[in-house]
Amino acid sequence: MHDTLLLFGATGDLARRYLFPSLRHLLRDRLLPADFRVVAVGRTRHDDDGFREWLREALGTGEGSDARALDDLLQRTRYHAVDLSDGQAIARELGQYADRPSVSYLSIPPHLFADTSRGLYAAGLLAPPSRLVLEKPMGHDLESAREINAVLREALDESRIFRIDHYLGKAPVQNLMALRLGNTLLEAVWQHQWIESVDIIVAETGGVEGREDYYARYGALRDMVQNHMLQLLALIAMEPPAALDADTVRDEKRKVLRALRPMPPEQAALDSVRGRYGEGVVEGRAVPGFGHAGDVETFVAVRAWIDNWRWSGVPFRLVTGKRMASRMTEVVVTFRPVSHWLFERPSATRATPNRLRVRLQPEETIELGLMGSLAAPEWSATELRPMSLDLSLSTAPARRIAYERLLIDALKGDQTLFVRDDEIEAAWQWIDSICESWARAGLGTRPYAAGSWGPDDAAPFLPPTVSNHGERD
Amino acid sequence: MHDTLLLFGATGDLARRYLFPSLRHLLRDRLLPADFRVVAVGRTRHDDDGFREWLREALGTGEGSDARALDDLLQRTRYHAVDLSDGQAIARELGQYADRPSVSYLSIPPHLFADTSRGLYAAGLLAPPSRLVLEKPMGHDLESAREINAVLREALDESRIFRIDHYLGKAPVQNLMALRLGNTLLEAVWQHQWIESVDIIVAETGGVEGREDYYARYGALRDMVQNHMLQLLALIAMEPPAALDADTVRDEKRKVLRALRPMPPEQAALDSVRGRYGEGVVEGRAVPGFGHAGDVETFVAVRAWIDNWRWSGVPFRLVTGKRMASRMTEVVVTFRPVSHWLFERPSATRATPNRLRVRLQPEETIELGLMGSLAAPEWSATELRPMSLDLSLSTAPARRIAYERLLIDALKGDQTLFVRDDEIEAAWQWIDSICESWARAGLGTRPYAAGSWGPDDAAPFLPPTVSNHGERD
Repeated sequence: MHDTLLLFGATGDLARRYLFPSLRHLLRDRLLPADFRVVAVGRTRHDDDGFREWLREALGTGEGSDARALDDLLQRTRYHAVDLSDGQAIARELGQYADRPSVSYLSIPPHLFADTSRGLYAAGLLAPPSRLVLEKPMGHDLESAREINAVLREALDESRIFRIDHYLGKAPVQNLMALRLGNTLLEAVWQHQWIESVDIIVAETGGVEGREDYYARYGALRDMVQNHMLQLLALIAMEPPAALDADTVRDEKRKVLRALRPMPPEQAALDSVRGRYGEGVVEGRAVPGFGHAGDVETFVAVRAWIDNWRWSGVPFRLVTGKRMASRMTEVVVTFRPVSHWLFERPSATRATPNRLRVRLQPEETIELGLMGSLAAPEWSATELRPMSLDLSLSTAPARRIAYERLLIDALKGDQTLFVRDDEIEAAWQWIDSICESWARAGLGTRPYAAGSWGPDDAAPFLPPTVSNHGERD
Repeated sequence: MHDTLLLFGATGDLARRYLFPSLRHLLRDRLLPADFRVVAVGRTRHDDDGFREWLREALGTGEGSDARALDDLLQRTRYHAVDLSDGQAIARELGQYADRPSVSYLSIPPHLFADTSRGLYAAGLLAPPSRLVLEKPMGHDLESAREINAVLREALDESRIFRIDHYLGKAPVQNLMALRLGNTLLEAVWQHQWIESVDIIVAETGGVEGREDYYARYGALRDMVQNHMLQLLALIAMEPPAALDADTVRDEKRKVLRALRPMPPEQAALDSVRGRYGEGVVEGRAVPGFGHAGDVETFVAVRAWIDNWRWSGVPFRLVTGKRMASRMTEVVVTFRPVSHWLFERPSATRATPNRLRVRLQPEETIELGLMGSLAAPEWSATELRPMSLDLSLSTAPARRIAYERLLIDALKGDQTLFVRDDEIEAAWQWIDSICESWARAGLGTRPYAAGSWGPDDAAPFLPPTVSNHGERD
C-alpha cells in the first residue's frame, strides 16, 4: 500500500466534505499504513499549522476516537500552496515527496488536468509505481475525453490511472454485484427472458444555483448520465466476468457500453425527454427557475437499449433531474410477471411483479419484492400479498463514505472500482449520439415546475417506485 | 357453507387437542355460519350437559373472547353415544340431523370406516350435498387402500369425500405453494437445471410408547412417508397447475406420485436406510428402546427419484424417525452453486448455496438463504457472507391450528387441500415397491441410539440444516 497521498484541491468542497472525513475514518479504524502522510495542495495561502487549523474547524473536533483520529490526521498532513499551471512551482514545492511511491489525487477543475499531470510527471511524482486519481468530468464529449486520455497517457500508464466514479464506492452498488454474481437465484434470471425492465433514477431536490455557467455547458445528460448512471447500467448489464480483477471486469463493462444502441434522430422524441425547471416549491420552499439562457436540460429521461443476446428488448430507463419532488437515487430491476397468474387478490390491483430495488439515496438499502401468501382461514388460500425483503447484510457496520473504499483501493492499487479510458470513451460515444440526435431532431427542453417529477411527457419513463406514478412505493 | 358438523370420535385425542380448539377459534373469529351446530359422537356415555362439562374441562375455560367462544361452542354442541358398528343405532340416534346438509368427520379407527359410512349412508347423512371427512390411515398398502376407497364410493361420490392430511393445512405449506407459483424468481429456477436436491425431514423426539401394536404393523415408511411426506413432495414437485381448483391441482400431484421411480431390490441398500431406536437419552431424559418383536423400522431414509423432465437427476431425500435428537419438520430446497464462483471468503469454507427452507416444526417459518456482500473498506470487495431472509409474511396473524383451515374448507366444500383416492393409491404403489424391495433384498433395520440422528449409514441422507452433519444450521 502506498503511504503518501498528494491531495490537489485540498481546500475545495469535495476534500472538505468527503476526502478528509474519509481519511479520518480510515485512520480511526487503523486501515492506513503506519507511515501514511497527506500532502495537501491548494491555492489558498496557508502554512502547515494554518491549514491544520482551517481543517480542524472544517471537520469539527468530535469526541473520543474521532477526536484522536483528527489529531492523527492533522499531524500527518502538510500543506503547500501551489499554482498548478506552473510546472516549476510543482517541482519546487512537491518534488521532495518523490522519495516514496505516492498517489496524487486531482480534485481540481478539469482545465488544470493537463498542466498538473505534466508538472507532476516532470517532478518525478508519476514515476512507477506512483498513481494518479482523477475526479470527473472527463471531458464533455468523445473528442475532449480522448484529448484528456492522450495527455494522461503521456505522463503515465493506464494501469496507474484511477478515474473516480464515487457511485462505484457505495456499499449497495457492491452488494448488487455480489448478489448478482454470487447467487444462483439471480444468475438464473439475469437476462431478457426474465427481466422486463431496468430503471435507474437519480433525482435531486437541489438546483443549479452557483454553478449555472458550468452546468449550461453540460446539462443533465452529460453531467449525470454519461458517468454515474452509465456506470450503474454497465454493472447491472455486463456479462458475468471470468474473474474480479480490474481489467476483466472493465472489459465486460466496456462491451456493454459499446452495445448501447446509438439513438437515431427519428427516435429522439420517442426514447427521450428533456426538461428544464421553472419556479416551484421544493421541500416546502419556493425556489426560482433555472435562469440561464440557452436550451440546456436540467432533467433528462432516456430509454436505453442494449443490443446483445442478454438484453434484447429490455428497456433501461435512465432518469435524472434537478429540483425534483424528492431526493432519490435507485436502481429497480423489474422481473416479468409469472407466466400464468393463478391467484386472486380481493382488490382489483394486479399482482406486483418481483423486483430488486437498490437504493443509494436517501438510504442505502437493497430490497427484494416477492409475493407471499396469507395462510389463514379468513383469507382464501389463493390470496397473495407483496412482501419486501431486506437484502442489505444486517451485520454490516455503520454506513461509510463511498470515498473511504475508493481511497483505500487507490492506495492499494486495485483498479476494479475505477473507470478505464475506453469505458469513458464508449460512454461518450453513446452520449454524443443522443446530443446529435437532439440537435438534428430539434428536440428542445420542456418546462417543469420545480418540485415535480419532471415534464408530463416523462411520466412513462419514471420507475414504478416513484409515488405519483401508478403504483405507490 | 354447510352448517352441521357431525364429529365421530368426539372424546378422542384428536378431537380434544385439535378439532374442538379449532372450532372455538373459528367461532371466536366469526368464521362459521350463524346456524352452525356440532353433533359430537363418541362411545363414552354422556348426556349433552355431561359432554359439555367434559369438554369445558378438556379445553380450559380461558378468558375474554376465548371464554365467550367456548360458551358459544358448548351451546351449539349436542352429544350422542353411538356404537358405530350398529347401522340401526346410527340411524336412530343421528337420522334427525339429515334435515340439513352436513359434514361427517370420522376421527375414528380405520376398521370402523366401512360400517360407519354404510350407517351414515343408510341414515341419509351422506345424501348430496353432505360430505365425509376422513383421517388417516387410508389402509396399509395399495390393496387395502383400494378396498377403503371402494367402500366409500358406494356411499358417496369422490367429490364429497375429504381425506385429511393435516400437513396441507399448515401455513408454511400454503406459503410454499404461493411462493413457488406466485413469483417469477422461483418459477425460473424450479427445475433440475437449478435445483440440486430437495430434503424433507420429519424428526420426532417422541417414541412409540402406547401404540406399539399399531406401529408394528406400519413402521415409519407407511406411518409418515406414504402420507405427509409424499404430500409435501407432490406439492413441491408437481407441474404448475393451470388453475387452483381441487381437481386440477390433484391431477398434477397424482402425476408426480406416479412418476416416482419404483425402488428395485438391488437399489434398496443404496437408496434407503431403515433404523430402529435402542435406549438412549432424549432431551436430557433416559428412554428405553423400541421393544416390540418383529423387524419394524422407527426410522427411515429414502432417496426418491422422480422420472420426468422437470426433476430428472434431482434426489428427494425423505427422512423420518422417532426418538431423534431434536424435533424438526422441514423442507429444504438446495439450489445448485453459481456456475462459476468469483468470490473468496477468508475462511476455507465453500460458499453456501442458495436455499429455500420451509420449517413446519418447531416453528413455522420460511427462509431464503442468499449470499450478500460486506461492502466496507476493511473487507475485500470480493468477500461474501450468507444471509437468511424471512419469507413468512410478517403481517400474518398469530399462528393457527392447521385444522382450522381444513375444517373451514370442508364446510365450504373446497377439496384443494384434501387428498383424492387416486393420489392415495399412487402413493401406496410406490411405498409398496419399497416394502417389496426391502423384503426381497432382506434389508433389515439398523440400531440407533434414542436421541441421535438415526443409524450411521443414514448420515448422507440428512439435510444440510441438521447440525451434526457437515455444515451447521
